[in-house]
Amino acid sequence: MKEIITGLNKQFDNRVRLGIMSILLVNDWVDFNTLKQKLELTDGRLASHIKALEAEEYIEVRKQFIGKKPNTSYQVSATGRKAFNEHLDALERLINITK
Amino acid sequence: MKEIITGLNKQFDNRVRLGIMSILLVNDWVDFNTLKQKLELTDGRLASHIKALEAEEYIEVRKQFIGKKPNTSYQVSATGRKAFNEHLDALERLINITK
Repeated sequence: MKEIITGLNKQFDNRVRLGIMSILLVNDWVDFNTLKQKLELTDGRLASHIKALEAEEYIEVRKQFIGKKPNTSYQVSATGRKAFNEHLDALERLINITK
Repeated sequence: MKEIITGLNKQFDNRVRLGIMSILLVNDWVDFNTLKQKLELTDGRLASHIKALEAEEYIEVRKQFIGKKPNTSYQVSATGRKAFNEHLDALERLINITK
């Protein structure tokens, strides 16, 4: 049991982070507003979780202009992909134990 | 995506709580020291998460004496079983999206 718990990544304990990472795992470059809409979050709440994932280098940021409008997009990094997949594997083992 | 996130129970965001609930889901009446050993936690940390799960009425407590020694055991309540199974279902949906 201990191994499963330690296999779970503390950075992904939060539901919002699970949501962000899941979306980024299956989509290339997703912009802030799309994430916000898909997860129905406020700007502040989304921004704080993105900042935390960025600090771990789990996601990469791209800032550009679309016309005159600034646009910020995110994609999962190789590190983030590996970390999140390990987390999902640990969750799967946990689910299997309980079924 | 929003539905999956809201299907995840905030009370189970924490890895330790996932561990406690998983153990209680598949075992009847587990005592404090067994939980502590299985999850390799300090008394304080385990106690604080147990208290939170008790407050939600997700687990039930039984205090008794074994010989002269007090012994406290826990089992998952019907409410807790339902809530945790719903959480695991939401996690499974999340895992399936990403595979």
